[in-house]
Amino acid sequence: MKFTINREQFLKGLMISAKAIGSKSPIPVMANVKIKICEKGLELTGSNAELTIQTTIPFMIEDKEIIRDVNYGETLVANKFITEIVRRLEGQEVTFEVLDETIAKISDGKSDFKLNSVKAEEYPNIDLEMTGAKVQMSYAEFKDLVDQTAFAASTRDQRPILTALNLEAVDGELTATATDSARLAKKTVHLNERCNFLANVPATVMSDVAHLLDENSTVTLAIGEKKVVFALDGTLVTTRLVNGEYPNTKHIIPHGFSYFLEANSQELIAAMERVSLLSVDRENVVKITMTEDSVEISTKSSQVGSATERISTFQYTGERLEVSFNSTYVMQAIKAAKCEDITIAFLGEMKPFVIKNVKDESHVQLVTPVRTY
Amino acid sequence: MKFTINREQFLKGLMISAKAIGSKSPIPVMANVKIKICEKGLELTGSNAELTIQTTIPFMIEDKEIIRDVNYGETLVANKFITEIVRRLEGQEVTFEVLDETIAKISDGKSDFKLNSVKAEEYPNIDLEMTGAKVQMSYAEFKDLVDQTAFAASTRDQRPILTALNLEAVDGELTATATDSARLAKKTVHLNERCNFLANVPATVMSDVAHLLDENSTVTLAIGEKKVVFALDGTLVTTRLVNGEYPNTKHIIPHGFSYFLEANSQELIAAMERVSLLSVDRENVVKITMTEDSVEISTKSSQVGSATERISTFQYTGERLEVSFNSTYVMQAIKAAKCEDITIAFLGEMKPFVIKNVKDESHVQLVTPVRTY
Repeated sequence: MKFTINREQFLKGLMISAKAIGSKSPIPVMANVKIKICEKGLELTGSNAELTIQTTIPFMIEDKEIIRDVNYGETLVANKFITEIVRRLEGQEVTFEVLDETIAKISDGKSDFKLNSVKAEEYPNIDLEMTGAKVQMSYAEFKDLVDQTAFAASTRDQRPILTALNLEAVDGELTATATDSARLAKKTVHLNERCNFLANVPATVMSDVAHLLDENSTVTLAIGEKKVVFALDGTLVTTRLVNGEYPNTKHIIPHGFSYFLEANSQELIAAMERVSLLSVDRENVVKITMTEDSVEISTKSSQVGSATERISTFQYTGERLEVSFNSTYVMQAIKAAKCEDITIAFLGEMKPFVIKNVKDESHVQLVTPVRTY
Repeated sequence: MKFTINREQFLKGLMISAKAIGSKSPIPVMANVKIKICEKGLELTGSNAELTIQTTIPFMIEDKEIIRDVNYGETLVANKFITEIVRRLEGQEVTFEVLDETIAKISDGKSDFKLNSVKAEEYPNIDLEMTGAKVQMSYAEFKDLVDQTAFAASTRDQRPILTALNLEAVDGELTATATDSARLAKKTVHLNERCNFLANVPATVMSDVAHLLDENSTVTLAIGEKKVVFALDGTLVTTRLVNGEYPNTKHIIPHGFSYFLEANSQELIAAMERVSLLSVDRENVVKITMTEDSVEISTKSSQVGSATERISTFQYTGERLEVSFNSTYVMQAIKAAKCEDITIAFLGEMKPFVIKNVKDESHVQLVTPVRTY
């Protein structure tokens, strides 16, 4: 096995596959990256059993030769060493060669590294076949779908189903829903195909896939019975679906609001960030007090002191209302709505409230208030 | 007590005094910053008992009014809150006011923060008087003196005296020496005054003082019996001297070398950094193998593999020689010498070797080799 490759492209590929390799691998052989050179190009596979990323570097990119002097073969080398070595080498090209079955040599002519290697047969078989319902969308649209929802998923393992992003495709519309039971984010996109499926994909994997590449491209999702496969340019990602039934959130968004606040997103976020500095008794809990004449964000801590911020740019309709909430939830929701002016609609002091961009009906978020004493 | 101050200058001052305040203060009252407004300006004091920093912001900087609406007084407020609040406020000016003895109000007109405050009397008395021998030098020269030596001091508490930077002034020359017993760095500067003193100053404090300010200025050291005070522009720093006798390093620099390597500093450092990636069996230990025709840096690990780097730009005089050493020590020494081409002079395989810039006789460094098997 041997190949000479453009160092930058090799590093880029290694960094992509490395994203699936944990620092503490549950299965020792998975601390390695699988390096395979075949007729398709250089295939790099990283996995932590839950998540697998396989990226393929082609022999040519546009008119430029990327890989040459090839002798087909495959091997496993320690991910953390090969990536760091390729990152720090100075040559434009790197030659990778398996000297015997236990040593891989990496050289740029000036530096020679010999890494202990492991036979490729010892790597587990990973199913990357794109079975089940398929749906394709632009990578930009996919990023939005994920960035506007996945942060609201639970990060705790108590109810594993809530760590998933719930994807539901019905009649040409795909809806992503995430909730940690104190807040919820929902986003709908139109599909070119009319397909139907239901899948609970780990929210962290969705975020990883949404930030794996910089380039404009398309993403194809293949939703199988137990796994999902994402195909992006030359990269395949697979993960197991989360078991269990996702809570029914169809009718959870309330209606008939009595109080409406419209405010500048930036100003509101800056005020909450500052006030939260003193939210030490109950982490990040702040209170908003609204009348038609003034909007104030405040907090109070017996240990530390108190903080009050007055909002200058707003429009409020309704009676005087005080609502306490976790400022992190509300700030993340405002950021996810991606708009200059944010609208928050309330039903009352202790009722969940809705945060949205009035110009974008495809995205809605819900936050539950916090009781204060 | 009350004052209105330019927010940027207030923040700059708070960040300077904060450098002496630890995250876990041994004495609870020292988690506060002491804020005093008096005829000199705004005096901010931070301390962790070992190290104290006091900085004074004047009423005017050049023609610009910095502080106005003053009511003299002093108080203590929690450092971590006041600094973060002043950092995040948006106003150009901030008003600080002690409302009663237990509440300090910080406001920019839009945001109001009330912090629990403590009476200034509860702060320990700190002696910042500049007693003892005094010496003045440019801040740039002081930075060099410290940056070229202090890193070689010990970071372990086993022999506290080795955590100090040893300063010795004799007849118009000041020599700084640091050693952790495996390496040594020594730098001499000429003084304008003829003064004599001997002081062991914690090396970490010396580094803090050398990086406290960006501006060109001068620094004055006042070396008392038990403490040293540094005066820089409007800032005073004091720390206790380290007790004990510094080892005699006068005659430690060897002479009569038989092997000389001259190489490009950058290339040597880059090669050592890469090779060290595989120095996992014995952390950072690498070997240099020199002949008149080739210079190689290498390492070998039974677990991981091996690495070899060939140096292209060098001149070597002497018989073939192999020396093993801690690459971190040698890389730090080369960086501290601040020169394009570095000279390393050896006596033999197991003898300490000297690293120096041949054009700078004021600075010399010594590293002890490591035995390999």
